[in-house]
Amino acid sequence: MKRMVIALGGNALQDVDSVPTAEAQLKTIKKTTKYIANVIEAGYRVILTHGNGPQVGRIVIQNEVADKITPSMPFYICGAMSQGMIGYQLQQTLGDELKSRGVEKQVATIVTQVVVDKDDPGFNKPTKPIGPFYTREEAEILIKEKGYAIVEDSGRGYRRVVASPDPRRIVELETIKTLMDNDNIVIAVGGGGVPVIEEGGKLKGVAAVIDKDLASEKLAESIDADILVILTAVDKVFINFGRADEKGLDQVGVDEMKKYIEEGHFAPGSMLPKVLAGIRFAESKPGRKTIITSLDKVEEALKGIGGTTIENIRR
Amino acid sequence: MKRMVIALGGNALQDVDSVPTAEAQLKTIKKTTKYIANVIEAGYRVILTHGNGPQVGRIVIQNEVADKITPSMPFYICGAMSQGMIGYQLQQTLGDELKSRGVEKQVATIVTQVVVDKDDPGFNKPTKPIGPFYTREEAEILIKEKGYAIVEDSGRGYRRVVASPDPRRIVELETIKTLMDNDNIVIAVGGGGVPVIEEGGKLKGVAAVIDKDLASEKLAESIDADILVILTAVDKVFINFGRADEKGLDQVGVDEMKKYIEEGHFAPGSMLPKVLAGIRFAESKPGRKTIITSLDKVEEALKGIGGTTIENIRR
Repeated sequence: MKRMVIALGGNALQDVDSVPTAEAQLKTIKKTTKYIANVIEAGYRVILTHGNGPQVGRIVIQNEVADKITPSMPFYICGAMSQGMIGYQLQQTLGDELKSRGVEKQVATIVTQVVVDKDDPGFNKPTKPIGPFYTREEAEILIKEKGYAIVEDSGRGYRRVVASPDPRRIVELETIKTLMDNDNIVIAVGGGGVPVIEEGGKLKGVAAVIDKDLASEKLAESIDADILVILTAVDKVFINFGRADEKGLDQVGVDEMKKYIEEGHFAPGSMLPKVLAGIRFAESKPGRKTIITSLDKVEEALKGIGGTTIENIRR
Repeated sequence: MKRMVIALGGNALQDVDSVPTAEAQLKTIKKTTKYIANVIEAGYRVILTHGNGPQVGRIVIQNEVADKITPSMPFYICGAMSQGMIGYQLQQTLGDELKSRGVEKQVATIVTQVVVDKDDPGFNKPTKPIGPFYTREEAEILIKEKGYAIVEDSGRGYRRVVASPDPRRIVELETIKTLMDNDNIVIAVGGGGVPVIEEGGKLKGVAAVIDKDLASEKLAESIDADILVILTAVDKVFINFGRADEKGLDQVGVDEMKKYIEEGHFAPGSMLPKVLAGIRFAESKPGRKTIITSLDKVEEALKGIGGTTIENIRR
């Protein structure tokens, strides 16, 4: 049975046009899990990963607004909380969906830590904005009192930025493997995982955001997956996106994809990390491939008739 | 290898005299995990459970204070978030502690749902206070707008109360068993589990608090544990507690314990649910026993030289 990591994008968890209540989130997640159940029924052994950007952003806001009443939790704890929140809704709806189809499989969320290098260059130049916008005065206080790195965000105010270091190791890997080998559907590395560094043999949470596609890639490599599926809002990766000569990519070799990166076709913080994760996985071992597509095209893409497939072959 | 469920009390997670920062919580949890590691090294197969009262209370406050900016999550989602938060700190520190002793075991938190009966009598008469105190005016608005059950709390203000239904089934049971059978240390049913009811074959979160000792008991039965350890702030269960003739209980049969309950020796919401869970487990199958003691006495109690042991035998 082929092993697959499916990385859910933000639109699989939440409809951007709805007020972000738990009920609205659940409604979107219910739709999402139908597609995932289709893939599972098609005979793949699936591990689910997911982003947490909007959700953890709201948790940070809740923490900061209530800070005078009860102390704010550090950002990495907010990440662990978001894993509990999103994991609960995903495991419940996917479990229900599978049961309604007569598929007897356990679905469970593993709270996941991901080790990053404490000397990762990202820590010297934090770039990932998190949490609310601040006024200049608020920003100055936070820099002084909490040591935050804060930058001006294109005229909209000031925001905290954290590092986005490269994922090195999934702490709960053996647990995830054990569950996968026993036919469980595992939900793991939510939000890219809780980032931790190693210090004197101990793990320690750090303020950082690990890109969820790169964390999913690391997990896919580590569990010896055959396919990494990165789900996003578009059916395919495009070059010349938004221009008259835009072109969707079908089957792409890694060398060709690297050329497109050099030519600047992919937006940083959007399609670029997905393509980078996709190349990294395809290059990690012969036979591995990455599919980048949307939820409603994922089944077709697995049959080779849609989406963008990245493989380590020359064409 | 004997199977054991250890239920951690509030004092194992947080020092009541400290400001409840993440760092203060971590310091307490680090102490706790040393005792747990001792038990694991002594050769028991351990599943950890824990309460979440103060932690979920603070999450509720954060949600409510920020409600005008971002919608409050329902109480059961706050519970799932607390499982992520506490599970992260427990798995990290226990994993580190075991590694430092050369014990190679995986430690992982499973986000856990616990099914309750939607007709549980508790739903007709909610009694468990959660979240902040309200003024009378605030209480009236919440009753009207959110349908909360709110009661006056002994002159200190008004508080929301929810049901405390009996745990019926651990949804993620097979996952927890698989991990235990593969020598993982599992952290599960945090805060008594996320309470869900079954409706038309689907699970649905409900506002309720499942007593964490009763949920731990249900888990202990379901995984066929030999010993249920309920940790609390005192070394033993006492009768006539606080009086001149108070007496600590050592080895107690279930019939004797039931007599003490009838005589009103144990405080509801404090020692009573622990004793009830203890009796329920001891009665569930021959050979099973419950130990109620404090963290620093747990090793001695396992050797039979401390704590209160409840067994289904006549003395």
